[in-house]
This record gives sequence, structure tokens and C-alpha cells, in this order.
Amino acid sequence: MTKVAIVGANGYSGEELCAILARHPRVKIVSVTSRQHSGKRVSDVLPRLAGLPGIGPLEFTETESEKVLQTDAEFIFLALPHGLAAQFAVPLIAGGRKVVDLSADFRLRDAKLFEEFYGSPHSAPHLLAEAVFGIPEIHREEIARAWLVASAGCYPTSILLPLVPLLKAGLIKSSTIIASSASGVSGAGRKPETPLLFAECHESLHAYGIPKHRHLSEIEQELGWAANDQVTITFVPHLAPMNRGIHTTIFAAPEEDVDLSLITACWKATYEAELFVRLPDSLPDVKNVNYTNFCDIAVRLDSRTGRLIILSALDNLVKGAAGQAVQNFNLMAGFPEGEGLV
Amino acid sequence: MTKVAIVGANGYSGEELCAILARHPRVKIVSVTSRQHSGKRVSDVLPRLAGLPGIGPLEFTETESEKVLQTDAEFIFLALPHGLAAQFAVPLIAGGRKVVDLSADFRLRDAKLFEEFYGSPHSAPHLLAEAVFGIPEIHREEIARAWLVASAGCYPTSILLPLVPLLKAGLIKSSTIIASSASGVSGAGRKPETPLLFAECHESLHAYGIPKHRHLSEIEQELGWAANDQVTITFVPHLAPMNRGIHTTIFAAPEEDVDLSLITACWKATYEAELFVRLPDSLPDVKNVNYTNFCDIAVRLDSRTGRLIILSALDNLVKGAAGQAVQNFNLMAGFPEGEGLV
Amino acid sequence: MTKVAIVGANGYSGEELCAILARHPRVKIVSVTSRQHSGKRVSDVLPRLAGLPGIGPLEFTETESEKVLQTDAEFIFLALPHGLAAQFAVPLIAGGRKVVDLSADFRLRDAKLFEEFYGSPHSAPHLLAEAVFGIPEIHREEIARAWLVASAGCYPTSILLPLVPLLKAGLIKSSTIIASSASGVSGAGRKPETPLLFAECHESLHAYGIPKHRHLSEIEQELGWAANDQVTITFVPHLAPMNRGIHTTIFAAPEEDVDLSLITACWKATYEAELFVRLPDSLPDVKNVNYTNFCDIAVRLDSRTGRLIILSALDNLVKGAAGQAVQNFNLMAGFPEGEGLV
Amino acid sequence: MTKVAIVGANGYSGEELCAILARHPRVKIVSVTSRQHSGKRVSDVLPRLAGLPGIGPLEFTETESEKVLQTDAEFIFLALPHGLAAQFAVPLIAGGRKVVDLSADFRLRDAKLFEEFYGSPHSAPHLLAEAVFGIPEIHREEIARAWLVASAGCYPTSILLPLVPLLKAGLIKSSTIIASSASGVSGAGRKPETPLLFAECHESLHAYGIPKHRHLSEIEQELGWAANDQVTITFVPHLAPMNRGIHTTIFAAPEEDVDLSLITACWKATYEAELFVRLPDSLPDVKNVNYTNFCDIAVRLDSRTGRLIILSALDNLVKGAAGQAVQNFNLMAGFPEGEGLV
Repeated sequence: MTKVAIVGANGYSGEELCAILARHPRVKIVSVTSRQHSGKRVSDVLPRLAGLPGIGPLEFTETESEKVLQTDAEFIFLALPHGLAAQFAVPLIAGGRKVVDLSADFRLRDAKLFEEFYGSPHSAPHLLAEAVFGIPEIHREEIARAWLVASAGCYPTSILLPLVPLLKAGLIKSSTIIASSASGVSGAGRKPETPLLFAECHESLHAYGIPKHRHLSEIEQELGWAANDQVTITFVPHLAPMNRGIHTTIFAAPEEDVDLSLITACWKATYEAELFVRLPDSLPDVKNVNYTNFCDIAVRLDSRTGRLIILSALDNLVKGAAGQAVQNFNLMAGFPEGEGLV
Repeated sequence: MTKVAIVGANGYSGEELCAILARHPRVKIVSVTSRQHSGKRVSDVLPRLAGLPGIGPLEFTETESEKVLQTDAEFIFLALPHGLAAQFAVPLIAGGRKVVDLSADFRLRDAKLFEEFYGSPHSAPHLLAEAVFGIPEIHREEIARAWLVASAGCYPTSILLPLVPLLKAGLIKSSTIIASSASGVSGAGRKPETPLLFAECHESLHAYGIPKHRHLSEIEQELGWAANDQVTITFVPHLAPMNRGIHTTIFAAPEEDVDLSLITACWKATYEAELFVRLPDSLPDVKNVNYTNFCDIAVRLDSRTGRLIILSALDNLVKGAAGQAVQNFNLMAGFPEGEGLV
Repeated sequence: MTKVAIVGANGYSGEELCAILARHPRVKIVSVTSRQHSGKRVSDVLPRLAGLPGIGPLEFTETESEKVLQTDAEFIFLALPHGLAAQFAVPLIAGGRKVVDLSADFRLRDAKLFEEFYGSPHSAPHLLAEAVFGIPEIHREEIARAWLVASAGCYPTSILLPLVPLLKAGLIKSSTIIASSASGVSGAGRKPETPLLFAECHESLHAYGIPKHRHLSEIEQELGWAANDQVTITFVPHLAPMNRGIHTTIFAAPEEDVDLSLITACWKATYEAELFVRLPDSLPDVKNVNYTNFCDIAVRLDSRTGRLIILSALDNLVKGAAGQAVQNFNLMAGFPEGEGLV
Repeated sequence: MTKVAIVGANGYSGEELCAILARHPRVKIVSVTSRQHSGKRVSDVLPRLAGLPGIGPLEFTETESEKVLQTDAEFIFLALPHGLAAQFAVPLIAGGRKVVDLSADFRLRDAKLFEEFYGSPHSAPHLLAEAVFGIPEIHREEIARAWLVASAGCYPTSILLPLVPLLKAGLIKSSTIIASSASGVSGAGRKPETPLLFAECHESLHAYGIPKHRHLSEIEQELGWAANDQVTITFVPHLAPMNRGIHTTIFAAPEEDVDLSLITACWKATYEAELFVRLPDSLPDVKNVNYTNFCDIAVRLDSRTGRLIILSALDNLVKGAAGQAVQNFNLMAGFPEGEGLV
């Protein structure tokens, strides 16, 4: 059994991580931390987790890196707000632990880009070169060798899984990409803020964070890597009245002489052997991916305008957060990639 | 046009009051207050209200009684947390204004009962004798003459409208009354607290506040008044994943020889001429009363156990708060009772 | 009092029409029809409408044009499925009644376009020239003079209100327009079909009807009229887990040298005096327009790509159906445009 | 690997069964049937199940007992409407297969009671003596030996798990029991009926099926068995706007001298070693049990009236249907009881 710790386990991603890892056949959770609930039983604070064999009588400890270093956890999952995660990772990496970070702190390779999008200098820029962007379907080999994986976020995963193979193959015009996404409210975190109240979000749907959402930085970094060129896209996220799920609709023009069959053939070649990317005939729906680590992808051609309409769906807390983190961990630990996830 | 002020207009009840009064043909809103948003335009803070003729360019003023007294509002609606409302009412009443209070502060006639249920002494006990409990269908004449009306709450209204006539007529055994209610989340107020987040309340349903919910005090006071005897009931509220609506299911044993037809005849006699109490053949559903001032009431007999099953539904923000407040106001102002509400 | 009939009153739009017209100060509803519920009381079938003064003891009659012609209704509202509405309108118009049609049957001026998008020949092509496309903010004068108004649909209204003035003024490039909309489930009608079940739509979000949704025909007809040129756009509707509301996000490139201020100035000039189009500073949200006849419109510039992001929101059953129908009716009847709607 | 068939796999319970059994480490699904979708791939009809190792390229076969008998399935799960299940079970049992029935057909030991509650004579009364009522925590030994298990329904499980031990121990007065439940809409099945549409159920909450709901028959049979006496209760189910989950609130008077500690001690003794019954300190909430096989139980004393308020929550599709069926199957097959469920 591989020993792991979960730092910041009281957020939605942290709770989901606990739920997945508590059932993982090769994992023993040795520590979970929470600033707010230190000293309390996990099963009292998060009654959903009570009764899971891997949780038992575990208590939250304080969210301090020294405490975590005192445990014998080989792997540390960081489910912290951005900024805080970078501070935490430094001593853990220095202490020889492997880290799977669910925050945005190590997703960008360029510290200046981080500062541009997050508004403050990066606190551990020396780790950026070492960190691997954590989407297994895209960076599997590097992840397997990494000490520090920056597990990718929910919006980016929903955009990158369909687009990266198409840009690599030169099938679409990168300057025409527009992505319009809708997210369930858990994506905003367990934060007691008025705009996230039930009575504000139910029977509500609205865009937010436009025109320059923070996630654009990691999306464009990876699209640019795939296209081997700078890529700038338009991205509009929306908040939709559901707990879980990201649905993304992407508009893009194909390159000359590229028809629908080339798009689907490219995806089939890329994803046929993948455990967690499905290519359904029907249009993706968050209800089919929620509570799973799957990402569903489909495409239609609008022959009247020549545009491709690309659609994807995933669970923001699983393939968009905790599930992907465990998938990354499985690679790093040398386990079968789907262990604990299927 | 009668001039009115709304104190604490940024909560859900206050916002609904603004929406109703802005369309009321005999009302001019001269002042709205908000601790949090003083100085801002109402239509910017609450975009739902933008474009309503009665709102126009109104700005929130500070929630201070002196400010309100400087206006020429004849009627003041208080949509404040309990405790605060009582402090506010004193100078307003002293200043000759009529007050419709939506809080719990003046609903109990007994200051000791208030202290028992609310945990602190009443700050204006001298006003309790003067205040009238505000359900027009029950206390119409007193309301019409009152200076201070304590508009009844949502759970109590859903329980009192069906039960008061039955207890007055001696048709049910008061010791057998059990009420189980479900409320939409707006009933908890616009408070940035974790348990009220969308992702906590959606796909969730749970009881709370048991076994001694604060609203029991006003419910039992009025049931006791109707029965001319002390009445103690069991009351279990639940939080249900909807924005609006109270649904109440009441269990009670009829008195000897009382059959279903006597129950329905009693209601028909009491409510036939009422504008806002409906007696549908079908079972009440919050969807039929939401965004209206109606309360729907029905009854079934469980002949296997002899118990009556009484059901009611209303919109917690309208008949359970702002609509009822305006209905009370119409009576106090001598207007047709349904003005601005139908 | 102007006498009106509502044909097909049991659908969601028909029910909403009843609710609005029952409160309209200058209207008397003399007949409501329903194939399914003929002979039953409206208030029994649709308990939400019980107790409204304008409904009273009304019973549904059969949905037959002869029955409707036997009434003395001056205005007939048709809330029927497409195809059926056209058959109905012919004898009513011939009988001298004015018709407000909520279906798609008379929205296209070109019978061939109807056949292309709806799959069967138009049954009353001679009426197409006479019918006026029913968005008052766009065709006010023609509506006021019309005998037959084809009240516009929900998606088209959410797209046309923001875009028509911009195309008229030559501010955006019509070939770049992409519209991505999300609709509440009531937009699909009261049809007992598996995909519309609660347990299919809740915690669900998906695109549908792509790439050639029927509503494209009326959208492009009106955009082309505004641009004085053929316009072809990409349109992707989504079903979102809410009862009511349309949210539309539109992507478009401005013409050379057009900046954001020209866009907002154009809207201000067009809509400043309008009762039902609001230009909020904040981003539109369906919760602010639901249960109202407002359409909210806003714009942001994505300066990184040069694209405009235009957002709109309306209630699909009010400004997208019944409310707009009544607004059209008010114009046809010579009443103040907002009568019964504010 | 034990071979199983799932008959009627297209309903919500059947789909959930497929999802659980497809991941069960000791099970191979050899056949799934659907009247409606025979010949189609399971993963096309139910895209949620695509990509699960146990589903693969499986196709639905026709729902005919001969077809099922032609497979080598040792265990047959019946997820059929009541009435149909009984007809199916006869040849399967005769053919030597073990049957786990999720319908109501074999839950009652008395064929007359079945006819009273279901309105038609039982078609296979000879099997009633053989069938075992399927709640493992109550009838574990009989289930392990049974050929035919009638897996208990969702409402009954939520009522029986808390009450059976208390009645067995003589701690509560059976004549005082009242149960008020709220169910998610998936409990009503995947049936295209107007009252189950999203736009009918969202922002809606109402009672139904009163005063004599069919499930009362199995509830009272088992309560009577526990009390060793006839038990008649009042039961009011409600439909709540959520996909999954049953929440039940039970009112009952304790026997003389029974205090709260005796109740909780009784539960602790009964359930301490159980895998799937939890006794949280906090009040049960469906969100904590959804997507799990847990049932949460708690109690409070209303000391003002002397009544116990007992609360329970479970997922109607898991512990209330498919999960419980698999738990029963595990017992029948001699597997660890939690296999495939934790």
C-alpha cells in the first residue's frame, strides 16, 4: 500500500479525492489536513465519507507542511487555493515527497505568464521547469517520471482533450477557436459567498470572468504547444444550475480540405486505447460523465458556415480535478492508470 | 399615492417587497435602505428591479431610523433580522409612522416567550400589546386599526391557515397535531453561509432546527388562541432544493364523530370569500402558488388510522413574507385588500 | 374590455398567456381551448390559475376554429404546434378576427424557406405576405396595423434584439456571427417525452438540434433584413436544468474601427425609450428576467482576439412567448404597450 | 466469475444495476434485456455505461424468459414493472436460476394482501412462501439460502431499517407511527408521463398517493413481523425536486420509561457491525448517501410532546434498489456482502 496525504481536504476537490482514494486498492491515506477543521474527525465534518474503509477514524490535522513532512506519506495531494499550493510544495519536494497539485500554481511554465494572469509573482519559479502539466492523455511519459505534477483544471481539460490532437495534426485553424463552457457550481469551491448561494444560482445562468479568465493561460499554453505556434482563443465560461459537470462547446474552422471524417479519424487514432476518453455518437451530456472519470467528445459540421462544432463533457470534480489527480498519481506510482477510477 | 419606505431591502423578502410595491397602483416608494449597499442604485445592486416604474433611479440609504424619519413615508416596512427590527420600530412608532414588520420581533404577545425562544430579552416589550399578528384572514379587523403589524412568517402561515378554523370549531384534537414542512432555500435569507451554498443544497434534503424551532412560539400562540387552550405541537422543518415555496403536511386526529365533510365545510365557510386562500381538489403543490399570494389547502382522511392528513402550500417570499406584508398594509391603509397582489 | 380567446391554452405558453391576460386591465377572456381537456374547468386542469379574477369558472372548449368563431372574441391567440396554427388562422382571419400566433407558422415570409426548415409545404402561403414578424422593438408600426402577427420565438428574440440595431448600423461583420444559447426546459413544451423527464434533465446539460435548428430560418431572415444582405450564422442551442430562461452568448467581429463605445451607443439610442429592453452594467442572468417581459443585453470586448462577446437573457415563456404576444396585442389593440406586463 | 443477466435494464434501477455489476469484481454480465431497445448496443442507449469493462459491446436482447434461459446466467436480476416480474420469475425459477427481483411482486407473503394493494390477483402465489424479503440487515440468513429474493423498495427500506429493531425490542408504540417521506423523481421510473416532466417537477414539491400508498403493504408486513403484532401506520410520500434520494421523517411515541439513550443503544447494538447502516451525529441528508449503498439514521426527542423524531436517508436507486439487490446477490452467491458496493 502506498501512503498518501491530502492537504486541504475540506474543499469539494479535496473531499472527492478522499472519496476516491479511500476506495483505491493500493492506497493508504495517512493524513488529511484542514485549516478550518483541524482536530475533528473527517467523518463528522464530511458525513458523506463516514463508513468508508479508507477513512475510518481519521482526524483532520493542521494544514502545515511540517506536519505533513512528519508523516510517512510518499505522495502528497495538494487541494489548496492557488498561491498557497506553491508555498506548500517547496518544502515537500525538498523533503523528497512526490506532489500532485490540484491548484493552478504549477501549470504554467512561464513565471511571467503566471504573474500576468494571477496578479502576483510566482513564489517558487524554480519549480516550474520541473512540474509537468497533468493531463495523462497528453503528457503521459513526463507525468510518469515527474516529482511534481500540476493536475490540469476542469475547463482546460474539456478544451484540450478535443483540440490538442487536432492542432497537432494541423486540422483546424487555431485563430478561429472560440470556446463557450458551462460549469456546475461546485467548480467555484466551497466558499461562503453570496453569489454562490443556492437561491442565487438556482433558476439562474450567466457568463462570468470574461473576457480574460485565468484558465486561459494554461489553455493557450497547451494549445500553443500542440500547434507549435502561439494560440490565442476566445473563452466564455458560464455558471449553470447544477452541482457537477462541465459542458464545453467549441467553434473552429477546419483547415482547407479537412472534412469531418479526418477529425473523427484523428480522435479515434488518438483515443481508441484510452480508458477515459469516449467518442459517443450522441451529443455529450454532463449527466453521462458525472461521478466518473470519463470525458466525452463529439463533433458536428455546420456545413452552412463551414465551422466545426466540437462538444465535450466531464465531471469538474473527477476528470476535472480529483479523478485526474489520481490518474496522474497512478502513473507516477507505476500503477495501472485506471486503478481506483473504474 | 401613499408614501412608503422599505428598511432592509437587500434581503430576499425586502427585494420581493420592492418588486411588489413598485407595481402597486397606490404606492410611491420614497426610501429603501441597506446597510451593505448604502449610496448605490437599487437597480445596480438588484438588477431584477431595474426598469420598474416605481424603482427608477432610487438609491439605497443607510439603515438608520433617523434617516427614515426624515422621509415623508407614512408606512415603514421593516425587513430586518429579528432583534434589529424591534430597535427600529420604537422611534418610528414614536414618530407617528405606521409599521409593517416582517421579522419575528412583534409576533409574540408574551415577552418571556420571546426570551425563551430567541435567547435574549425583548428590547421593546411595551409595544407587544399594541402589535397585531399579521395574517389578514385571521385578524383582519385588528390589523385594519393597528399602528404596528407583525406580519406572520412562512411556516406559521402554512400551518395556521388550515388549523385555526378547525380548532376554533373544535373539530380536531390539538394534542395530536404534528406538522412536517419543507421550505425553499430563500427562506433562510441572503446570508453567505456554507450550508446555504448551491452545491450544499442541490440534490440535498434534510431536516433542521429540531425539536424546538423558533417559529413554534408564534405557531402555538395562535393555535392556542384559536383553541382557547394551551396547544403544544411537534414541528419538523426541512430544507428542500428549490428557491421558493413552503409545503406543509399536518397530521391530526379529528374529534369524535367528526368526518371529512365537516372539515371541508368549515374551510369553505371560512375561506369562500377570501381572495388568497384556495381549496383545490388536487393536492397542493408549491409550483401552483409560487410568485403568487395564494395559500392552497387540502385534506385527506387516512381511514385506516383515523388520522387527517392536511396539506398546504404557499410562496415563502410572497404569502409567507412580502405579499402578506402588503396585504396587511392594504388593510391598514384602507385599500382593497388585493391591491397590487392579484 | 376587449374580448380575447386563447387556443391551445394547456401548453406552457398558453398557460402563461392565461396568467397574463387574466390580470390585463383591458381584457376579458371569453374562450380558452384544449384538445385534451375540453369540458374541464381551467382552474382544475391548471390549478396555478385558480382564483384569478379573469379565469373564474371558465371551461376549456374544443380546439376547433368553428367554436372559436362562435365566440365574440376580437383577438385570437394561437398557442398551437406549428402546422396546426396555420390551418387555424385561415378561417379566423377570413372571419374578421385579429390573430396573434405564437407558433412558427407565419414568421417566414418565404414559403420555400418554411418547407426547407419544417419539412412540409406551408398550408396557407397567401397569408405570409400579410403576417408581421412580432418583435415590437423591431417592427412596431407594422404590428400596430396588422391583422396577423407572428409573435417571435424565444431564441430569435434573444439574438435579434442585440444584433438587429448593430447590423442596421453596420457595426459588426455578419459573417462572423456565432450564437450559443441555453434554454430552460419549459421551452420544449409540455410533451410527455422521455428526454424531457426531470430525471433526464436535472444535473444535465447538452447541446441539441445542431447544426441546423429550425429557429435559424427566422433568425437569419430578420438579420438579413437588418443587414440588407444575406446572413448565415452558426447557432447552437443547449438544454439547461432550469424551468425558465434563455441565455444567449454571441460572438462577432466588429467592423474596422468600431470600438465598444459605438456598440453601446447604438444600443442606448435604440433602446433608451423602450419599456422592455434593459442594458445593465452587469452580465445578464436569467434570474433577473424570469417572470418578467424584460430582455437584458450587455457586451464585452475580448481585446486579445478583437471579438465582441454579446450576452442576452429573457424569460422564454414571457418575452420569448406569452409576454411578447401580449405586447404585440397591446399594439394591435391601440393600448399602451406595457399594459398588463409591468 | 459468476454469470448474471439483467432483465429490464433500461429503467433507472436497471441502468444502476448495470453500472454496479459492470464494476463488480466477481461478476460477468452475460445478458441485458430491454423491450424497447432490443438489438441496440447498451452503450448507445445508455451512454453513461459506455467504456465500462463489464459492458463492452453488449447488446440488449428481447425481454423474454426463453431468451434469458438460453444464456448460462446463474443469477437473474428482474428490474421489471410489478405484475410482469411474477410472470417472468416462474420459468426462471423452474429452470433452476436464482432470481433477485426488484419489483413488488414477491415482497408480500399473503396473496390476498397483494390483490388488495395492487388491484389484481397474484399470478404466481405458490412462489410467495419461497421468496425472501430482501433487506440483508433484517433477513440475512434467509436471503443467503434463498432462490428468490424480493429486494425491498426505497420507501420501505428507509422506514424499516430504523423501526424494525425498535419494534423488536419493544421500545416504541406501534400505533403512533407516522412516516412522512420525500423522494427524488427517479423513484417514479423512466416513464414518459406529463407529471414527471422537468418543468412539472422543478420548483415543485407535493404529496401524492395518499392515504393508501402501495408500499404500505410491505412496510406494515415487516413492521408487524418485528412487533409480533398487526401494525398500521400513516404514510405520506412526497415528490421533491431532486434526481435521487429518499428522506424519511418518522414520528412515534416511545413506550413508557423509554428514553433517547435506549433508542440509540438499540441501534448501536443492531447496526455497529453493519457495512451499510450509519448512525451519524448530524441529521441525515440525501446528499451524504446519494451514489452510495449507505442508509443514514438519526433520532431526536421532542421533549415538549414526548414524541421521537426519527430521520433516515438513502439513495433510492442504490440502497433503495440496485445496490440492495447486489447486496442480496452477494449473500446468495456467498460473496463478501459489500463486494462491488464499497
